[in-house]
Amino acid sequence: MKIYTKTGDFGQTSLIGGTRVSKHDLRVECYGTTDELNAYIGLLRSYNLTKQGADELLEIQQLLFAIGALLAADPERSKMNLYDLTNDDILFLEKAIDRMEESLEPLKNFILPGGNAIVSHIHIARCICRRAERLIVQLGATSAVPENIVIYINRLSDYLFVLARAIAKDTGSPEIKWFPR
Amino acid sequence: MKIYTKTGDFGQTSLIGGTRVSKHDLRVECYGTTDELNAYIGLLRSYNLTKQGADELLEIQQLLFAIGALLAADPERSKMNLYDLTNDDILFLEKAIDRMEESLEPLKNFILPGGNAIVSHIHIARCICRRAERLIVQLGATSAVPENIVIYINRLSDYLFVLARAIAKDTGSPEIKWFPR
Amino acid sequence: MKIYTKTGDFGQTSLIGGTRVSKHDLRVECYGTTDELNAYIGLLRSYNLTKQGADELLEIQQLLFAIGALLAADPERSKMNLYDLTNDDILFLEKAIDRMEESLEPLKNFILPGGNAIVSHIHIARCICRRAERLIVQLGATSAVPENIVIYINRLSDYLFVLARAIAKDTGSPEIKWFPR
Ligand code: B12
Ligand code: B12
Ligand code: B12
Ligand SMILES: C[C@H]1O[C@@H](n2cnc3c(N)ncnc32)[C@H](O)[C@@H]1O
Ligand SMILES: C[C@H]1O[C@@H](n2cnc3c(N)ncnc32)[C@H](O)[C@@H]1O
Ligand SMILES: C[C@H]1O[C@@H](n2cnc3c(N)ncnc32)[C@H](O)[C@@H]1O
Ligand SMILES: [Mg+2]
Ligand SMILES: [Mg+2]
Ligand SMILES: [Mg+2]
Repeated sequence: MKIYTKTGDFGQTSLIGGTRVSKHDLRVECYGTTDELNAYIGLLRSYNLTKQGADELLEIQQLLFAIGALLAADPERSKMNLYDLTNDDILFLEKAIDRMEESLEPLKNFILPGGNAIVSHIHIARCICRRAERLIVQLGATSAVPENIVIYINRLSDYLFVLARAIAKDTGSPEIKWFPR
Repeated sequence: MKIYTKTGDFGQTSLIGGTRVSKHDLRVECYGTTDELNAYIGLLRSYNLTKQGADELLEIQQLLFAIGALLAADPERSKMNLYDLTNDDILFLEKAIDRMEESLEPLKNFILPGGNAIVSHIHIARCICRRAERLIVQLGATSAVPENIVIYINRLSDYLFVLARAIAKDTGSPEIKWFPR
Repeated sequence: MKIYTKTGDFGQTSLIGGTRVSKHDLRVECYGTTDELNAYIGLLRSYNLTKQGADELLEIQQLLFAIGALLAADPERSKMNLYDLTNDDILFLEKAIDRMEESLEPLKNFILPGGNAIVSHIHIARCICRRAERLIVQLGATSAVPENIVIYINRLSDYLFVLARAIAKDTGSPEIKWFPR
């Protein structure tokens, strides 16, 4: 089977469950942006983080695919038995955040994103994560979205923020604070 | 003539044909996102791919400008004679895909985007390509869009997927599959 | 205080002034995209530009936070005394553009984005800047947005275009023009 099936050449595609929708359907926008986030997490993984960091990013990528599948399923027609995010999946992120924060100074100001390439890319991933969150929240306003997805994505952006700080510290990149004029 | 003409300082801009529209017009959104995709293809070109890969990316960039011009033309008022994408332009991508797939294992699973920097960036470009596609499909629902544009952009994301796999293979970066839980 | 407050777990958040809005509110979309742009400027800063370039990017990041605060303030309920962009802030960009253009050939054609990594990333930042501009213009259509924000962001994308050209020249990366077919 060729990778290009040409079935999407006229602007429509199929959800899990078979429903044909426009590629501009908000649901497609949501799993498409989750894919973009996943690609960015892949980029972070390509930097040589610690073993622990690399394992966490792999786990996150796996779950982003689980989220993608949930978002791609038509809530009214899919009969697939898909993996639902658990409270443990969310705790996984929270524990990682708590662990990293232990060695970081508490913040009272925003910090300018950047410093070096890896720290910068983590901040960009954080922003794409938040873009995905905004879309998924919008979808949830008119269609069924499993509640844990938004919580997971919300926590993921905090994980990425703290990861950026932790890697900045490890790589000796100073934090520059924002002071309002 | 200065680069900053200030004509867009109050939120409006001109299509080809002279029509003034809001910068938030869906048409502007479409060629603006095509520009973002083009910038990303430019980033891929900056990695040292094979001569063939580099030539293909240049050709793609040229065509993205042709697409940008088509999208920027007011279908009701532009009298410009713009280049229309041909079937050969689409075949160009399909042949490249077929050529690369010859040396790749057939897939039965999703693969986690990432591995190394170049492979990751190709996946990100793939996702931006799909974001552009979603917008152009939306534009097509209410305004005239040459049919070959969607087909070309649809094929381009498959080209990028296969390119990511091919470069992963060339650079010895293993594919990690996604297995649903 | 933990970084994850969980107050946003159900899709709502607070503007400055206390108003609860959906995370998909256009205002949140606007400062979220300004944040994405800021993260990208941070990436540019991580390349070793000249001292002058680095200082300019820092100043831009500071102002993007000022813009973020203005956009995050509910025009009807915030009582915070926030920094408003001045004409001098805009002149700062124009002078930088003029200075860089002095050593560049005038253009009569589009140039293909790309060449090397830093030039490519500047073009991507330029496109994200324009994406932010489109959203802010949309917000301005239904809600109060300080006028200088759009002007600043409009000028910033021209600054980034000229910066890309200047760095391309400094790094010996040739400009490839687009010639319509
Ligand atoms: C949702 C979806 C996506 C989403 C989200 C996936 C997720 N879970 O997060 C996103 C946007 C990421 C996506 C991306 C792509 N997808 Co897709 N996707 C789907 C869709 C609609 C459902 C898949 C799914 O998640 N099922 C739920 C899981 C739990 O159940 P499953 O069915 O057992 O899933 C398996 C297969 O569907 C999949 N699979 C099976 N054969 C193949 C072959 C290929 C080439 C790939 C990539 C996957 C794949 O692997 C899963 C393993 O368990 C299917 C079409 C459909 N209606 O089924 C297309 C489909 C699988 N996708 C397809 C393609 C081509 C792609 C892309 C290559 C497109 C592109 N150019 O970017 C990428 C590949 C991304 C990657 N990293 O590998 C094709 C595969 C065609 C083929 N040759 O077999 C399909 C069949 C659609 C089609 N008719 O064209 N996709
Ligand atoms: C659509 C459009 C775009 C689109 C898509 C273009 C595409 N084809 O994909 C995008 C979004 C990419 C774009 C980007 C930019 N654009 Co523009 N664009 C236009 C627009 C509306 C039509 C151009 C077009 O495609 N015409 C169709 C082609 C086939 O016909 P053409 O007219 O012969 O096209 C030629 C010229 O328009 C162009 N050109 C001529 N002089 C100059 C000068 C400069 C500085 C540039 C960049 C191009 C340029 O080169 C083409 C060569 O054939 C024009 C305004 C207008 N209404 O004409 C502005 C215009 C050409 N753009 C302009 C500018 C400033 C830019 C940007 C620098 C903005 C920015 N800060 O990012 C970038 C440059 C990108 C690059 N890589 O070079 C200015 C140029 C001002 C000047 N000093 O001469 C114009 C005139 C708008 C304006 N009044 O401000 N643009
Ligand atoms: C708007 C806003 C943003 C915007 C824009 C900010 C801008 N100016 O451009 C964006 C989207 C960038 C943003 C990002 C983040 N934000 Co914010 N943001 C806000 C919000 C709504 C207003 C802040 C503001 O600009 N005020 C205007 C300035 C002039 O006045 P100010 O109040 O004195 O601002 C100070 C503090 O608000 C801030 N600050 C104080 N304590 C802390 C603690 C932390 C951890 C941070 C990051 C900032 C911070 O530093 C400013 C220094 O003067 C507040 C909530 C609120 N309603 O106040 C949350 C808030 C400050 N943000 C918060 C968080 C967690 C973040 C992020 C880490 C989220 C993420 N995962 O990405 C990032 C951090 C980005 C960074 N680079 O540091 C939390 C902080 C919680 C805590 N532990 O103290 C708050 C309180 C919201 C909440 N209840 O969860 N944010
Ligand atoms: C830190 C601040 O960012 C805003 N906020 C919360 N979630 C998002 C999101 N997904 N995208 C953009 N901004 C968001 C809220 O206003 C919060 O207080
Ligand atoms: C692989 C799957 O991705 C979805 N799909 C098809 N086109 C796009 C796009 N432009 N953006 C996001 N998702 C898309 C379809 O559901 C397809 O089956
Ligand atoms: C260079 C051309 O780009 C278009 N233009 C102006 N502002 C934006 C923006 N924010 N995003 C995308 N396109 C824009 C106008 O059509 C202008 O003429
Ligand atoms: Mg949050
Ligand atoms: Mg497709
Ligand atoms: Mg402009």
